Amino acid sequence: MSADLAQLVTSIAQRARAASLVLATARTEQKNKALLALADLIPAAQDKILEANSQDLAAARANGLSKPQIDRLTLTPARLVALAESVRQVAALPDPVGEILESWTRPNGLKFRKVRVPIGVIGIIYEARPNVTIDCAILCLKSGNAAILRGGKEIFHTNTALASLLAKALLAADLPADALQLIPTTDRSALNTLLKLDSHIHCIIPRGGESLIRFVVENSSIPVIKHYTGVCFIYLDKDADASLSETVLVNAKTSRPGVCNAAEQLLVHRDIAESLLPRVARALASRGVQMRCDPKSLEILKRTPGIDTVSLASASPSDYTTEFLDLVLGVRIVDSTDEAIALINRDGSAHTDVIITRSESEARLFQSGVDSAVVGWNASTRFNDGFEFGFGAEIGISTDRLHARGPMGLRELCTYKYLMDGEGQIRP
Amino acid sequence: MSADLAQLVTSIAQRARAASLVLATARTEQKNKALLALADLIPAAQDKILEANSQDLAAARANGLSKPQIDRLTLTPARLVALAESVRQVAALPDPVGEILESWTRPNGLKFRKVRVPIGVIGIIYEARPNVTIDCAILCLKSGNAAILRGGKEIFHTNTALASLLAKALLAADLPADALQLIPTTDRSALNTLLKLDSHIHCIIPRGGESLIRFVVENSSIPVIKHYTGVCFIYLDKDADASLSETVLVNAKTSRPGVCNAAEQLLVHRDIAESLLPRVARALASRGVQMRCDPKSLEILKRTPGIDTVSLASASPSDYTTEFLDLVLGVRIVDSTDEAIALINRDGSAHTDVIITRSESEARLFQSGVDSAVVGWNASTRFNDGFEFGFGAEIGISTDRLHARGPMGLRELCTYKYLMDGEGQIRP
Repeated sequence: MSADLAQLVTSIAQRARAASLVLATARTEQKNKALLALADLIPAAQDKILEANSQDLAAARANGLSKPQIDRLTLTPARLVALAESVRQVAALPDPVGEILESWTRPNGLKFRKVRVPIGVIGIIYEARPNVTIDCAILCLKSGNAAILRGGKEIFHTNTALASLLAKALLAADLPADALQLIPTTDRSALNTLLKLDSHIHCIIPRGGESLIRFVVENSSIPVIKHYTGVCFIYLDKDADASLSETVLVNAKTSRPGVCNAAEQLLVHRDIAESLLPRVARALASRGVQMRCDPKSLEILKRTPGIDTVSLASASPSDYTTEFLDLVLGVRIVDSTDEAIALINRDGSAHTDVIITRSESEARLFQSGVDSAVVGWNASTRFNDGFEFGFGAEIGISTDRLHARGPMGLRELCTYKYLMDGEGQIRP
Repeated sequence: MSADLAQLVTSIAQRARAASLVLATARTEQKNKALLALADLIPAAQDKILEANSQDLAAARANGLSKPQIDRLTLTPARLVALAESVRQVAALPDPVGEILESWTRPNGLKFRKVRVPIGVIGIIYEARPNVTIDCAILCLKSGNAAILRGGKEIFHTNTALASLLAKALLAADLPADALQLIPTTDRSALNTLLKLDSHIHCIIPRGGESLIRFVVENSSIPVIKHYTGVCFIYLDKDADASLSETVLVNAKTSRPGVCNAAEQLLVHRDIAESLLPRVARALASRGVQMRCDPKSLEILKRTPGIDTVSLASASPSDYTTEFLDLVLGVRIVDSTDEAIALINRDGSAHTDVIITRSESEARLFQSGVDSAVVGWNASTRFNDGFEFGFGAEIGISTDRLHARGPMGLRELCTYKYLMDGEGQIRP
């Protein structure tokens, strides 16, 4: 890559670091002032944003992007209104910074307080969704972090227009414009430079497909918080309520099949396979779900009236570990809750797994044994979500174990530091 | 590297992952039983351990290792007694696993609990200190994590002897021996394989010199919690108490100059430079500390009676960012607390920084502005330590911001998961 480009990216990171130190001690009112300014700037700049967006859309069509891809990068007046509203909502959330998480006094009189503080500089690497630009910028700002945004080339013009609003909003609140910066090039080598700047950038959050995330993980010397796949399981225990099983499974599989917290795998206890599996399978089949079954479940469902043969298939081994993101479900019969736990820990993605049962003891066994971010009892997998958790916002759902696991809200965008107050204590 | 070696390392990681799932739900008593068995096994196997250690020592002498290096890898009967005692101390600590960190109910009736659980499999990469083998193994075990230990070639025989005790202790408590495994080769390529096994290993903790840590950070696709340098600052504010300044500074600089929480840099407010700097400098000089000074402080100290000229030097720019790990101190005069904060955030390592002042408002300004793991007021930097914090144990001091910052005890070796209890809730 050119030395100039490396220098540009390094300069962006250095300025972000300096701005992050200002932001870290900024008052809540000041951060909110910038957010509310942004909420006003978005509709005011509507024409300019949509014009930039139409440039990106023209290129997208010329490059033959798919209809869903084009939809994702399209902004409309209505979408801009929603975007501005989401900015106001974040402004209304409590400030996570400064909360005392713990305090204690040692026998030598030293007083310790553990206080929540921003992480510092966060790099957001994403693809072709312009709403991510605003979402991530405002969550970083509210949590006192500087952000470096690196979106896909498909939304470059849109992002450039949005970035100028971010800078204006910061300046309107006397905050440094460098606190929210866009990498002003889509050259891939800029990303390679960025991912090595571990002395200025403290955390990378990639948002996008698995290949992007894998690239970031393999090339970053900066700690990464990532979200891989959601291969979510529902296990119908022998004491599962039939109606509840059907309701929850249909919701988890079909309410939004393309998202990470949709159910992808069904396990059914052998004792209720004959009685319950036909019922839930009929409900799924009637909603267009294809079931990829193990031999036992296939045998049962083949002789179930009311299930079209196109809804049934014999599973290949990879079907049991796949995030289909579609109306497809892996189905297996298991002998026990212990077997369900073992299969989930082996074949799942540690995202969201649910047991349906009337038995509290089986539920607790399952919740203890399943090693996933969210382990549920009698509820849809779809609730693994920052808003549904009550966090008020979400920058993603972490499948990592370090720092943040599950939904990441404002608090998860923070770290802590220790304040130590003494009266001249020395260490013997 | 040979395919066999890659296969061996992969197999170790897979078995560690399986063992980690057993350990995650093991009762406290069972983990303590293994720890107490280990504490008994260490003195019982003294002859075998010391024999293995003497092999390593012979090789170390033949390879011309320095005296401090040889001392670090030497075990003695007394050191084994201390090691066994540290195992008993960890057994006596409270189990961090299972604690409910938060709980709440959503308007739809969903009940959430955030519960502390082990991370899973932790890889420990270290150098030539056999006590690290035991220390890290027991902290991982107590916190319910499986550990993969990869020590330096200099202690290979000692480690092999110690690892056999770890396996015996686990089996004595009916826990899987795979929970604590040593990589049975010092081939560097085994480390390269290990650092890419992100589907089986969840966290890498490197312990050792900066080049080892840098190698791990640059080659690992597994999240790393690291400890780089400790360039710790003490700032003497204009309202600093003279006697307290001297006591704390002498302790921070000279009580153990080779450790990461020793002071390396001194900043002095200009208003007290003439009155206070000579006093503290005399105290430091009398203890053999060399001061590398900026022009203003050098000018003052050159005309201070009782300071030998060998104790004074003109600082080069790199002296202000150096972790000397020796009786050397960078010295600068600053105009204000704000300038001190800015210099510390620019030149320090975000480890431990302390203000000495009688003014609470200056102390709070400093603690708010300095972006370090531990920010102290009127106390020695040496207190950044898991034992001094009251954690009862320490696996290291993180200079990272994600997951753990500052001293890492048993709780910092854990993550959390969410338990979600419903009654059939579905997402609209």
